[in-house]
Amino acid sequence: MAKEIERKFLVSGKRWRLLADAGESIKQGYLTTMDDRSLRVRVYGDGRACLTLKIGQSALERDEYEFDISPEIAAEMLDQALGTVLEKVRYRVEHKGFVWEIDVYGGRYSGLVVAEVELESAADRPELPDWVGREVTGDFRYSNQAMALSEGAIASFHEPHTQSG
Amino acid sequence: MAKEIERKFLVSGKRWRLLADAGESIKQGYLTTMDDRSLRVRVYGDGRACLTLKIGQSALERDEYEFDISPEIAAEMLDQALGTVLEKVRYRVEHKGFVWEIDVYGGRYSGLVVAEVELESAADRPELPDWVGREVTGDFRYSNQAMALSEGAIASFHEPHTQSG
Repeated sequence: MAKEIERKFLVSGKRWRLLADAGESIKQGYLTTMDDRSLRVRVYGDGRACLTLKIGQSALERDEYEFDISPEIAAEMLDQALGTVLEKVRYRVEHKGFVWEIDVYGGRYSGLVVAEVELESAADRPELPDWVGREVTGDFRYSNQAMALSEGAIASFHEPHTQSG
Repeated sequence: MAKEIERKFLVSGKRWRLLADAGESIKQGYLTTMDDRSLRVRVYGDGRACLTLKIGQSALERDEYEFDISPEIAAEMLDQALGTVLEKVRYRVEHKGFVWEIDVYGGRYSGLVVAEVELESAADRPELPDWVGREVTGDFRYSNQAMALSEGAIASFHEPHTQSG
């Protein structure tokens, strides 16, 4: 298994866009969820698809098992997902030795923009780019699982949800 | 996805053993469970391993997605299984055009022997061999999920649990 260690932030403004790659679209749904674990299916814009099992209570660090699966199977699974299938475009920006992933949500969560940085170790202290705002690591409302299942997720993004940078 | 349609029975006596193949050992655990779906990991005696997602409320028929995975990953997953890892040896017996799978449990459920027949359609009416006893299709206590999680499972098999045939 892999260890997933990451921090999550809201994004301020659009300055990051000049630094980002072309982005890739992602559709994802949750097939099973429990307090400390979830099974997610994800389909990428280029046709790839994967199944991911995450286990662990910690917001910062979880065990992760990921398998490539066929896009046809993934599409069937999305039809059986719990709650809402999330849609987003994921961009990547490198900043001072760390890769930031910026998720621009569509559909029901249109307007929400969240940045995640993956760490090698929980002791890593990445320098924060000036376009990140409030940290939401561990805020369950911003977890994709909560957003898909609407269990305490932020209900609307029509009001400003980012801080000015 | 595949459709899984099966009926389940307790087994009477040992007459089936003369008809059975050599059997294969199986260890299996549940990684996530919800009312209508579960994710199971299974390791076979020959080293193969698979991950299986089942979705559906019906006892007789469920959607099933199965993926081969590496035995090393499967072993890690078994360590993170919920409740008890089940151990059994699965034998196969062909009877009047249907293949019966006979699971002889070990460990905590030592003494329990259950036969399942997989059907092509819910309308199939397989002829029952004389070594099957009471039908337990849909009896949640005999589901592997309940047995692993001890949620209403039969607690003990020290008393006779099969009918005389």
